[in-house]
Amino acid sequence: MSKAKIGLIGLGVMGSNLALNIERNGFPIAVYNRTLEKTKEFVKGDASGKQVFGAESVEELIAMLEKPRRIILMVKAGSAVDETIELVKPFLEKGDILIDAGNSFFQDTERRSEYLSKSGLNFFGMGVSGGEEGALWGPSIMPGGQKECWEALRPILKSIAAKYIDGEPCVEYIGPRGSGHYVKMVHNGIEYGDMQLIAETYDLLHRGLNLQQDELRQIFTKWNNGVLKSYLIEITEQILTKYDPETGKPMVDIILDEAQQKGTGKWTAQNALDIGAPTPTLNSGVECRILSSLKEERVHASRILTGPDPKYTGDKEKLIQAAENSLYCAKIASYAQGLGLLKIASKEYGYALNLGEIAKIWRAGCIIRADFLNDITRAYDANPELQNLMLDDFFHQAIESRQADWRFIVKTSVDLGIPMLATSSALSYYDSYRSEVLPANLTQAQRDFFGAHTYRRIDKEGSFHTIWEG
Amino acid sequence: MSKAKIGLIGLGVMGSNLALNIERNGFPIAVYNRTLEKTKEFVKGDASGKQVFGAESVEELIAMLEKPRRIILMVKAGSAVDETIELVKPFLEKGDILIDAGNSFFQDTERRSEYLSKSGLNFFGMGVSGGEEGALWGPSIMPGGQKECWEALRPILKSIAAKYIDGEPCVEYIGPRGSGHYVKMVHNGIEYGDMQLIAETYDLLHRGLNLQQDELRQIFTKWNNGVLKSYLIEITEQILTKYDPETGKPMVDIILDEAQQKGTGKWTAQNALDIGAPTPTLNSGVECRILSSLKEERVHASRILTGPDPKYTGDKEKLIQAAENSLYCAKIASYAQGLGLLKIASKEYGYALNLGEIAKIWRAGCIIRADFLNDITRAYDANPELQNLMLDDFFHQAIESRQADWRFIVKTSVDLGIPMLATSSALSYYDSYRSEVLPANLTQAQRDFFGAHTYRRIDKEGSFHTIWEG
Repeated sequence: MSKAKIGLIGLGVMGSNLALNIERNGFPIAVYNRTLEKTKEFVKGDASGKQVFGAESVEELIAMLEKPRRIILMVKAGSAVDETIELVKPFLEKGDILIDAGNSFFQDTERRSEYLSKSGLNFFGMGVSGGEEGALWGPSIMPGGQKECWEALRPILKSIAAKYIDGEPCVEYIGPRGSGHYVKMVHNGIEYGDMQLIAETYDLLHRGLNLQQDELRQIFTKWNNGVLKSYLIEITEQILTKYDPETGKPMVDIILDEAQQKGTGKWTAQNALDIGAPTPTLNSGVECRILSSLKEERVHASRILTGPDPKYTGDKEKLIQAAENSLYCAKIASYAQGLGLLKIASKEYGYALNLGEIAKIWRAGCIIRADFLNDITRAYDANPELQNLMLDDFFHQAIESRQADWRFIVKTSVDLGIPMLATSSALSYYDSYRSEVLPANLTQAQRDFFGAHTYRRIDKEGSFHTIWEG
Repeated sequence: MSKAKIGLIGLGVMGSNLALNIERNGFPIAVYNRTLEKTKEFVKGDASGKQVFGAESVEELIAMLEKPRRIILMVKAGSAVDETIELVKPFLEKGDILIDAGNSFFQDTERRSEYLSKSGLNFFGMGVSGGEEGALWGPSIMPGGQKECWEALRPILKSIAAKYIDGEPCVEYIGPRGSGHYVKMVHNGIEYGDMQLIAETYDLLHRGLNLQQDELRQIFTKWNNGVLKSYLIEITEQILTKYDPETGKPMVDIILDEAQQKGTGKWTAQNALDIGAPTPTLNSGVECRILSSLKEERVHASRILTGPDPKYTGDKEKLIQAAENSLYCAKIASYAQGLGLLKIASKEYGYALNLGEIAKIWRAGCIIRADFLNDITRAYDANPELQNLMLDDFFHQAIESRQADWRFIVKTSVDLGIPMLATSSALSYYDSYRSEVLPANLTQAQRDFFGAHTYRRIDKEGSFHTIWEG
């Protein structure tokens, strides 16, 4: 038996699918799972007749690999990653490469990277987006680690990654240490924002215009042929074709309105606060899931707290058209926040991120895939130092020509009492960002008043304090 | 020399003032500072002729105290607290009480509490609000620790605390372990929200109506005689009486609009995300300070990104009146979030918090002091299990009668392009909280579509998954 090109530990659905993807692309692979039964099942089942070799022990797995050894870990984020590293480490040699393809927190990846480098081992934190289907047929991949090892991974990763319509693989070297997992985290934060913006817009049309499933689906079909064209709009359209076989009602209407979160959106929001990046719309995505989870409280409150009539009585078509423009503007502002976060993190953590390349990677395979990302890549190609996405000519004009509709939608939601936290936070972000003067001068005066925190002046350097009382 | 009632370590401004406050109230106090010079200076200076005894060593300090020893630490939050604990610990006996009166992160207090309890020592995390003046003349105090030690601290703390106009001291036992510092943290989070709501409202009147300092001051004077009456409104009024002696311009106009943050607001936002409490308005306070700090970017963006004319052309008096009502509604929604956070934390950390008592403590001495807190105490006295502040009859009617103005102000800010992130997030919170159905069902359908995350149904128990494609 010739040596396997790569090894993989952890044969859950994601791991198995990734292994099949790798093998299908011409790379013989050795696999190992803590429970031997699972390995046998996989090798005899989905992987039967394929260049997939089951190892009964870690030692055997290592022996099957060509050097430098490349081993993907696809185990549950958290302590399981540390345990698996300890399991493998004794058998590795200087120059070998461990690749954590799970959803690890980037600070854990930083820590593991430092720890393994002391033994001369290389460690990649690799963000993989696209779910089970993506793992099998082509995910979007965000690998971060030692640059000098990138060549040893490139051929495999380029082969298994999703391909954009122009054929370009959705993977590129991201940066050192935890940068791959960091970028994946922010991807998810952006995804939270996207999903909330869509949900609010859907809610406005659903409740405000009393539109039924079929009309709503037609709107999303139309939107998926315009500037909003994206995977999330497309699956919304498909969701709106489904009826519950039991009750005959639209599927979406029988689903309980309590959204869970898996943590990456929360991490993004918390990290943005830590490093001082404004991401109100991304955060709204998390806040709204939290609010949704208070279902019982909301039902109770709905009988006590009053509000306006949620029925819109104006021009229906005008509202639908404005909703598309509003969603697009809010999406731009939301991505501006996500990319702004990456820009600040790049400096903070020394990641030297290439924002244009990152947008490219997201064009296929992942949840936020959209042609929209092409425009972002183009913006950063034209100006790699672009300070904010909204300042790019294309995007600035996109907002300029549509902002009246954006404002109209936010005002309408306020009139109808239909909450649009993400959409309105995006607008506040836009208006704040373009405000030469914000009222933080009053905030500073207050802080100096009650806490002698001092302030700076607009007309000269230095720190100043005023005796305010009397 | 008779023994001192209490000791204090750390003679910065806060520590010195607290010591003077304690002595003035009839409790002889022993003080120690790492730099001996500072101790000598204090004893011979501000404390001269008073029952303040300077100790040259920790050992000497301990010897000066009656048992059980009560020692306040007023040192910089972080490692300095741990170091000081190690310095004192060898001299302490079972039953002694260490009190950390700094701005420690509540999780650190949890850790230290557990650590010291292993040696039979008691540890209080004590939130102190009111700044330097408060420390000297009466702060709002939030002590958390072993309930059985509360009696040993009560007389001193009740004496030195701020007194509400009815004479009641602004201190009460909060709960075990880190609860005192937790409540202080949330106090600061609420303070961030309050300050941002005021700043936005000020901005709308300033930019939207082009009001000058004197007119603005008159408005705040009027507001400080109505439902908004509070310390923060009062100091805003005072700030608006000040002119810069150098330029003759209003002070507030020569202050740079970049607001700093000291971290407690950020901690509140991050912790709320951790334990699943919706606090969008508190978080906006932090987000807006972050946005303010991007001054250079904003100046640049203001020349590129367009928006509507910020001048309001409608009825000026109507807008001013509506602004007062809007600020009041948003404040209620913001406090509902802060108290909701305390309610969830109380369960999460086993703090058994009494929200009515906490509101009482905040009525004087601290930054958010206001008569408003009286109404909150009354609401929780009437119903200790109140699920949300907005559901209380008084507050629910307060919003009901004013919400048209609240909506009018948010819409006007959108029309004028003057950002009101906190005010609009408070309205979205209100509209979300009273929404029986939110569009999180669509979010759940999407999550089930792309990640097989499953969903719950409205009509029966269980987890469900749909094959959405095709």
